[in-house]
Amino acid sequence: MNLRIPGPTPLSPQAREALGQDVIGHREPEFEALLHGVTQDLRYFFQTTSDVLVVTASGTGGLEAAVVNVLSPGDKVLAISAGVFGERFAAIAGAHGASVLQVSFPWGQGLDVRVVEQALRGNPDARLLLTTHNETSTGVLHDLGAVAEVLVDLDATRPLWLVDAVSSLGAVELPMHEWGCDLVISASQKAWMAPPGLAFVGVSARAWDAMSQARCPRFYWDLSAAREYASRGQTPFTPAVSALFALQASLCLMRQEGLPAIVARHRALAERLRNGLRTLGLALFADEQHASPTVTAVCVPEGISAIEVKSKLARDHNVIVATGQGPLKDHVLRIAHMGRCSRSDIDHVLRALDSAFRA
Amino acid sequence: MNLRIPGPTPLSPQAREALGQDVIGHREPEFEALLHGVTQDLRYFFQTTSDVLVVTASGTGGLEAAVVNVLSPGDKVLAISAGVFGERFAAIAGAHGASVLQVSFPWGQGLDVRVVEQALRGNPDARLLLTTHNETSTGVLHDLGAVAEVLVDLDATRPLWLVDAVSSLGAVELPMHEWGCDLVISASQKAWMAPPGLAFVGVSARAWDAMSQARCPRFYWDLSAAREYASRGQTPFTPAVSALFALQASLCLMRQEGLPAIVARHRALAERLRNGLRTLGLALFADEQHASPTVTAVCVPEGISAIEVKSKLARDHNVIVATGQGPLKDHVLRIAHMGRCSRSDIDHVLRALDSAFRA
Repeated sequence: MNLRIPGPTPLSPQAREALGQDVIGHREPEFEALLHGVTQDLRYFFQTTSDVLVVTASGTGGLEAAVVNVLSPGDKVLAISAGVFGERFAAIAGAHGASVLQVSFPWGQGLDVRVVEQALRGNPDARLLLTTHNETSTGVLHDLGAVAEVLVDLDATRPLWLVDAVSSLGAVELPMHEWGCDLVISASQKAWMAPPGLAFVGVSARAWDAMSQARCPRFYWDLSAAREYASRGQTPFTPAVSALFALQASLCLMRQEGLPAIVARHRALAERLRNGLRTLGLALFADEQHASPTVTAVCVPEGISAIEVKSKLARDHNVIVATGQGPLKDHVLRIAHMGRCSRSDIDHVLRALDSAFRA
Repeated sequence: MNLRIPGPTPLSPQAREALGQDVIGHREPEFEALLHGVTQDLRYFFQTTSDVLVVTASGTGGLEAAVVNVLSPGDKVLAISAGVFGERFAAIAGAHGASVLQVSFPWGQGLDVRVVEQALRGNPDARLLLTTHNETSTGVLHDLGAVAEVLVDLDATRPLWLVDAVSSLGAVELPMHEWGCDLVISASQKAWMAPPGLAFVGVSARAWDAMSQARCPRFYWDLSAAREYASRGQTPFTPAVSALFALQASLCLMRQEGLPAIVARHRALAERLRNGLRTLGLALFADEQHASPTVTAVCVPEGISAIEVKSKLARDHNVIVATGQGPLKDHVLRIAHMGRCSRSDIDHVLRALDSAFRA
């Protein structure tokens, strides 16, 4: 099976082997070593020396954890969105009583940093800025480096910056510390070649400072408790031990490859796929300038159903891709190239698409 | 390794094999079959035809999900507690703004149903009743059948009944429907022989009715969304697919054995352990009448450190047990016999304890 949906992504063989081990106790010294090692590796990819906490939940749980630890009901929140996941981040803040000002861009486009800057300058009372790094629903990587520059200029009035990096981190550069991100969230089943069930939350010193003031209720998501336990190699609640074994194995591979090589490989695979799709005469959904290195959305020609093409690819070619989300459901196919993916996987997808569209 | 902590418990060999599979897409027909099968099996053990929802989180996440879906800030909540987990359940409700009236019993004792009845009759305005079925910190199984009878009599003024069955269900009788429980929570790493990362929440019709009125904010924990997705074999957010594979494999074994045989086996193992401990001259912590079939707390003789005995058992005998929690930390050892456990596992523990205490 060539699993090319944007998560869960294929496990590394090492992760699969690690998964088959029996569990261990999460209050034992072995677990302490496991959590410590994983955390150190995650810090390397988050490019921070601050805390990166592991929470047993999927990515959305990680986003909610980030929000409720720094939000008080009524706080003004600026949410940048250009797709399903940008809207979800805004909805999470809204569900917890934020006064959300959504700054939206057309689906398939990257954010316009001048508009973001205007929104920031026009709302100096905004407490949080929510951004999506990689918008999985459209295949767009937003230029957060440009946002970082704007935020530096704002200085004292800058809001806390929350970054949904669920489908980017581990495959794309996101220098958390250098860019001044305050809370960065990723999840095990994306670029990390591990099974779903773990969210990672990077937390800056500024974010820790803000937490004591934040009044949203929290228990399972309490990051201060997570930090306290992490300091002695534990988690407050029973963690997904098996998923951590797998993550440890995949992180070991990723450290061997190194972040620069991983980033280059993802860019090359994405380009190979996009070139192949163009050769097939298919239109790409995302603005080329902001095309994602981890997932590509391709338009299905007028009169053809994306849902049907997806089924055909699975049935006839053992290629599993995703259809669109929301209004794009039957109009685009989304093909992931994050984590474990090779050139031959991409070529297989292209041959399968060629055959499916010919039929 | 003889892993005898009260979770995570040893995986079944079938679960370990299932874990090593590659992941599948959670919007694919295969996943629909997986979730449907697991849910049907869970319903058998929950003894309900109502919904049992699977949430990617550990048990505490399941408890929080149950609470926030039926609570509004300010609601009066009766919380029955006699140990760490009873207190935790109360703390979750408190964190979300409940006005918690805690009815506490001495650690090691079962609840006194007359006191619970008094509290219920004296507080007809209580919206929720929180109970722990098996108190893992003390090794006590509370008599919830007696509570069920009291609740039947209360009729119109009865609160919604939330049951923490994290360390009981799948090993002990808890006929959710017959007893009229409204929200019942369990977790994969206990009697279910699956890795941590999945919580199960059984929901009664009364609980569904209450949810539309409950004003606690929720997003990841939203059980109505979980139900809607479950109706088409999906989850709102990426589920812990690998853990579900393992759970499916263990549930298959459990269905073959059948609930009555599983319940009898746990009772017999618990008794074998308790008899052996008595023979060693050790005192049992829990009231014999309410001793848990899944975990036994044994007192460490005066002048001996439970922490040191635990280390010795691990180092010299490859037996992993837990120390006490809270004030019991250095005074009791907790030995689990839930899920995958045989008579020879119990005998091994007894031999190891004998040797450790002789030394």
